[in-house]
Amino acid sequence: MRRICARVGPFQVCPSALQAPCSTLFRRTLPVAPFLSRRDLQFQLYEVLDTASLPSRERFAEHSREVYDDVLNLAYNVAEKYFANHTREADLHEPHVVDGKVQLVPGVQAAVDAFRDAGFFSAHHDEELGGLQLPWVVLQAVQAHFQAANIGSSGYPFLTIGNANLQREFASAEQQARYMQPLVEGRWFGTMALSEPHAGSGLADITTSATPREDGRYNISGSKMWISGGEHELSENIVHLVLARIKGAPAGVKGISLFIVPRYRVNDDGSVGESNHVVLAGLNHKMGYRGTTNTLLNFGEGGETIGELLGEPGRGLSYMFRMMNEARIGVGMGAVMLGYAGYLASLEYARERRQGRHASNKDPESGMVPIIDHADVKRLLLRQKVFVEGGLALGLYASSLVDEIQTGPEDQKADHELLLDLLTPIVKSWPSKYSQEALSDAIQVMGGAGYTRDYPVEMYYRDNRLNPIHEGTEGIQGNDLLGRKLTQAGGRGLQVLMEKMQADIQAAEALEGVGEIRTALHTAIQQSGAALTTILGQAPQLGPDLFLANANSALEMLGHTVVGWMWLRQASAAARALPNARGDDADFYRGKLQAARFFAIYELPKVRAHAELLASADPTTHDMQGAWF
Amino acid sequence: MRRICARVGPFQVCPSALQAPCSTLFRRTLPVAPFLSRRDLQFQLYEVLDTASLPSRERFAEHSREVYDDVLNLAYNVAEKYFANHTREADLHEPHVVDGKVQLVPGVQAAVDAFRDAGFFSAHHDEELGGLQLPWVVLQAVQAHFQAANIGSSGYPFLTIGNANLQREFASAEQQARYMQPLVEGRWFGTMALSEPHAGSGLADITTSATPREDGRYNISGSKMWISGGEHELSENIVHLVLARIKGAPAGVKGISLFIVPRYRVNDDGSVGESNHVVLAGLNHKMGYRGTTNTLLNFGEGGETIGELLGEPGRGLSYMFRMMNEARIGVGMGAVMLGYAGYLASLEYARERRQGRHASNKDPESGMVPIIDHADVKRLLLRQKVFVEGGLALGLYASSLVDEIQTGPEDQKADHELLLDLLTPIVKSWPSKYSQEALSDAIQVMGGAGYTRDYPVEMYYRDNRLNPIHEGTEGIQGNDLLGRKLTQAGGRGLQVLMEKMQADIQAAEALEGVGEIRTALHTAIQQSGAALTTILGQAPQLGPDLFLANANSALEMLGHTVVGWMWLRQASAAARALPNARGDDADFYRGKLQAARFFAIYELPKVRAHAELLASADPTTHDMQGAWF
Repeated sequence: MRRICARVGPFQVCPSALQAPCSTLFRRTLPVAPFLSRRDLQFQLYEVLDTASLPSRERFAEHSREVYDDVLNLAYNVAEKYFANHTREADLHEPHVVDGKVQLVPGVQAAVDAFRDAGFFSAHHDEELGGLQLPWVVLQAVQAHFQAANIGSSGYPFLTIGNANLQREFASAEQQARYMQPLVEGRWFGTMALSEPHAGSGLADITTSATPREDGRYNISGSKMWISGGEHELSENIVHLVLARIKGAPAGVKGISLFIVPRYRVNDDGSVGESNHVVLAGLNHKMGYRGTTNTLLNFGEGGETIGELLGEPGRGLSYMFRMMNEARIGVGMGAVMLGYAGYLASLEYARERRQGRHASNKDPESGMVPIIDHADVKRLLLRQKVFVEGGLALGLYASSLVDEIQTGPEDQKADHELLLDLLTPIVKSWPSKYSQEALSDAIQVMGGAGYTRDYPVEMYYRDNRLNPIHEGTEGIQGNDLLGRKLTQAGGRGLQVLMEKMQADIQAAEALEGVGEIRTALHTAIQQSGAALTTILGQAPQLGPDLFLANANSALEMLGHTVVGWMWLRQASAAARALPNARGDDADFYRGKLQAARFFAIYELPKVRAHAELLASADPTTHDMQGAWF
Repeated sequence: MRRICARVGPFQVCPSALQAPCSTLFRRTLPVAPFLSRRDLQFQLYEVLDTASLPSRERFAEHSREVYDDVLNLAYNVAEKYFANHTREADLHEPHVVDGKVQLVPGVQAAVDAFRDAGFFSAHHDEELGGLQLPWVVLQAVQAHFQAANIGSSGYPFLTIGNANLQREFASAEQQARYMQPLVEGRWFGTMALSEPHAGSGLADITTSATPREDGRYNISGSKMWISGGEHELSENIVHLVLARIKGAPAGVKGISLFIVPRYRVNDDGSVGESNHVVLAGLNHKMGYRGTTNTLLNFGEGGETIGELLGEPGRGLSYMFRMMNEARIGVGMGAVMLGYAGYLASLEYARERRQGRHASNKDPESGMVPIIDHADVKRLLLRQKVFVEGGLALGLYASSLVDEIQTGPEDQKADHELLLDLLTPIVKSWPSKYSQEALSDAIQVMGGAGYTRDYPVEMYYRDNRLNPIHEGTEGIQGNDLLGRKLTQAGGRGLQVLMEKMQADIQAAEALEGVGEIRTALHTAIQQSGAALTTILGQAPQLGPDLFLANANSALEMLGHTVVGWMWLRQASAAARALPNARGDDADFYRGKLQAARFFAIYELPKVRAHAELLASADPTTHDMQGAWF
């Protein structure tokens, strides 16, 4: 019985932890796989987006491209050394409870410590908070490294950052000093506590209660479900942002307020005090994403749980959306990076693994070819490439809009806000869905090997399946897009989107090699625009239920169209650079152009069926009866 | 800390085996879920297919519908009691090796014993072998129960049955008595050993050698990879069917022969003797399908491995295809049943779980509705319904062709053989792909709950992801369809398919409620037919590599068209029955009609894009260069 454990992909993994032998006889030991393409990230930031020009703005005046590159290098090194090193280990040993304390694999503590020591908890904050005032798009690029290297361990700092950002915007100065500053310093961690056992997608029905105390604070009582990072020993304290109803508040969304609820009460000097009676009632056992604890928490069990009202009563959900919108872009980017890591793993395998011959070669004595030479394997790799690189372009574009809103021209601010609002459900859901397709293709490229724990792709596939669910399911995102974002401000968001897409089509007119994507995008825009005009025009007659019955097709149709736009932008940048490029660079640009062609020919034609369905206001799903299933 | 373990879905599962608490606070404890719809199986066998008429044929003269129903009832009871009881347990405790022996959870032995005691190893065989001469379509319906209840444990008997069927056709009488009869009796188990570490999809390159011995047998030497059921202690012996090259044989497929290689040598009296030196070199650690051991076996390690040549030298692969074609239909049916079990689990959840309100209801004081009332949830359930019920119709239709070939009119035998050949790559790959989509939808319906081990759908999702890989990947199936099956016998197979589809379109002309599926199928046939005419006509100019570059689109296009046909057949049966149906029966038929409508409107329009791509002979994947990735 052989017992060989090898360095596989980015991981030092020893399946013998499972008390079973592993064999690597069937393949060569691969070198450490890159978890992220630094070349593509540079391309997206500096060739597709104009990130290098941001230092001309006052807020970023201390910066330069070199500063950004140094930050990205640091992110790469920390991610590689402290995050990628325990990804599989955390998957194999999911969080569990011993003597009432959550146990994680040791690498997680080292990872979040390294993240803190590198200054990433505060990098985007104002200088007065100890930050670097890093642009949002660079922060997303930084975070992409940790998502790619270890999605589970990245959850703790990212939830903490999102929590602090919400407090920064809406909490009082005293609350910020007390509850936000420790998060900015990475000493305490944060969560968002929205769902309850009986209320997941339907937050309007939460019942957790807040009873006023004489000291102006509130006693919080109830259960919160699906709370990521809800309990662990990684930080001195955990600050929960909790949605609850103040006694006597009206039913529905208007009665929901937001509370700051620490795991341990905070003494007047800011030190950590006694238990606040937030009790871990259970851990959820997930298919993937196992590195992040996911908890059921009981508030007010065995004693009083004291919380502070954040902002005004009744506005809790609108504050929460500050964090949720950020989290939705984060989910989309996490999906992109999981898909990207899988793509790189399967690409490496396809270059190494030899199997079969071209159909035109009937000589069995000839050597086997690397499978990357087979057209159908190239199809599977091109699909992955267009999904993950298109998703990355989209996520970074959306992030760049945050910078435009914060530091760009004042007269475009409102338009950029509407555009970001419109894109958010797409940025969240499109990569969640299409990275899953990419990861399925990564498994398929690797065949049986991809289905085993000897390679990381099966893990990424399990990890990413969460992304179409959390922070608003696909159904929620479809309703948000069609029912809210496409109609708000008289449809101005869609108009801005259309104008920007048309402008890029115009700008690409004289470029070589972008014809297919340019034409296909133009067609997709026509089809999408016509379908939206029809369905939005019919909305009053249809009524809300029938109007929204095919909201998913709106999401699919606009999602593919927008990513088609991202491919036109990438292809245009590549076409401009190719004439002066040599060697690997020229290959890189040719790959971008061929991928754009692939998206134009294999993917964008799918827009038509969705557009026709949407425009038809087809009642099939609406009319289906539960008893008929 | 609560520690609640509950009966979940069809499983008595206690995650506390993982030393972690589980909580069911967030949902009601559900009753045992059905793993299979007996109503739909009856519909498929007796209303869509004409299974009840088979007893009019000589081979089945002893049968009646009551006999078939009794057999199906027995299958249901054995599957429920002995297979469904340890599905999750086998998933949580995958096979591992202790003191050189493979350890399985105890339920597997009880399951295969019950399967044997019920007579299912031999039910389809001739009476002289102790069989019931059960028709193939009924055998598939029987097996469907075990696939739905426990795909992992069903692997051992099904591989054994396939192995015995191959021997029945090609092995000598002596070999049958020695090596097949114990399989038919379920005393020994069987495998198929094709792949090697360096040769998975490319079997032409296998190197396992067979050296002639003086006694007329062969010494087998080499390694075989991905061998399901390759080692266990469930049966007295294991009979491997091994592809190998006789010393001096030519390279490629023509040099491959097939050998019978038992795990333990067989004494002259048929009893089990000493070790045949087939050594377990490792177990593969899979994402799912964990109940079936998957092994790397070394032949001729530590001693001689003796095998017997089966049939003629050099014809090994053609014999193996007897078993492989059967296995491909089995894989497709396994995929269907996993998808079906997931559909039923998510359907039950959707009826129970309450969340949110209709978009038209703005009253937050009103009660939450069962999520099955939301149009997007109905969309997700309808998608599952059309994929799994369409797949079931297809799998049973293909199985009925086996009966037609064996016992049907002689003058149609050749046509039915060509049609079955043509459909086999679709029967294998379409459900493998679309059950995975269905299972993703099942998870989506259940939200976070579906992503946890508290419900079985995440397990089915992991299990089924193997199906697009084993017994020939999707890429292999696409090439088989476009490069072989569509052209053999002058394209007669396609012609037979088209005639049968057109006949059903004609027959449905006067039926009520089938208009959408009838029209949409007609369109899909037109588009598919035109695309195939174009690409097949261009084949000589294109050359094999470019001709096959978009073989996947042929598979998708014809797959959806054929399943559209299956939905027309189901809708027609429902339309005929509905006028006289009452209560649950009427609901059942209305569901079939609405699902057919859904497939027509939401799925069949996807044929067009694939047809256009295929006809264009687009060279994008063919032209892509490895260096450009």
